Amino acid sequence: MNTTIFSILPTLFLAGAVLAGEAPAPAPNGIGLPEGYRDWRMIGSSHRTDNNTLRVILGNDTAVEAARAGHTRPWPDGTILAKLVWNDAVHPAWEQATVPGVFMQAEFMVKNADRYRETGGWGFARWKGLDEVPYGDDAGFVQECFGCHTPVKDNDYVFTHPAVLP
Amino acid sequence: MNTTIFSILPTLFLAGAVLAGEAPAPAPNGIGLPEGYRDWRMIGSSHRTDNNTLRVILGNDTAVEAARAGHTRPWPDGTILAKLVWNDAVHPAWEQATVPGVFMQAEFMVKNADRYRETGGWGFARWKGLDEVPYGDDAGFVQECFGCHTPVKDNDYVFTHPAVLP
Repeated sequence: MNTTIFSILPTLFLAGAVLAGEAPAPAPNGIGLPEGYRDWRMIGSSHRTDNNTLRVILGNDTAVEAARAGHTRPWPDGTILAKLVWNDAVHPAWEQATVPGVFMQAEFMVKNADRYRETGGWGFARWKGLDEVPYGDDAGFVQECFGCHTPVKDNDYVFTHPAVLP
Repeated sequence: MNTTIFSILPTLFLAGAVLAGEAPAPAPNGIGLPEGYRDWRMIGSSHRTDNNTLRVILGNDTAVEAARAGHTRPWPDGTILAKLVWNDAVHPAWEQATVPGVFMQAEFMVKNADRYRETGGWGFARWKGLDEVPYGDDAGFVQECFGCHTPVKDNDYVFTHPAVLP
């Protein structure tokens, strides 16, 4: 009886993994979608009125510790910042409140001063939509990211200034 | 020698606790500032243009699990929602982005359907500013909170709709 149960279990686990769907494809530059980023802690937020999106910026443990210690110029190797982006929506009961609507994308900056030295020490990646489709036709897509971030070179190429907390 | 070290150690720890400052005072209704709320996970965000504030809504584990499972009408007992509020600031390098400026307050809703049955099952509390000063002159302050939340009674008195995530 025990033998039967133990021989069935691996099959059940495999079936579960298949049913849950495969991991999203990596970005064209080889960066994989960071696991568990939904559970990371909050570093900041923003509301862009040029493209009508709300953003919440999360960070992995290395990022959060650096942010709270004020060690962000430069951020340490191992930092990963995640920017979650939603289209603007109007709150159904408070029309002067903009709230997250359709989920647009998750954007990541991965700090490794040596590996990514050609793009300011940062590896960039983005996954679009709820299907988490990697952005970019080839590895050259990072030039678009890096170009947009170059105006904040003096802030280690990062737009986010960690939100002040008690 | 060992005796000397062990008799000094408790004094050093006590000095550290005093230097770190005491915990903020509880709210006038007895609710204490939830420990570790800065580390809670993200549930939503909003930008209010009637009072020019950016907000990020975090939740304790019970809240996050309920949000992800869609069990928010009602939220389960044990849920705590934290709304962190900053005044609007303009991003120094991207003027069409509103970002968190001065920290204003942390607001909490604590779910206990029985204990707080006179205010929709929710205990309310708020601490103002970086000094975390409890809001309200006496326990009656919750009527102000409850009054403002009554229009969203059909959403279990909660304004926040959890942001959609992949």
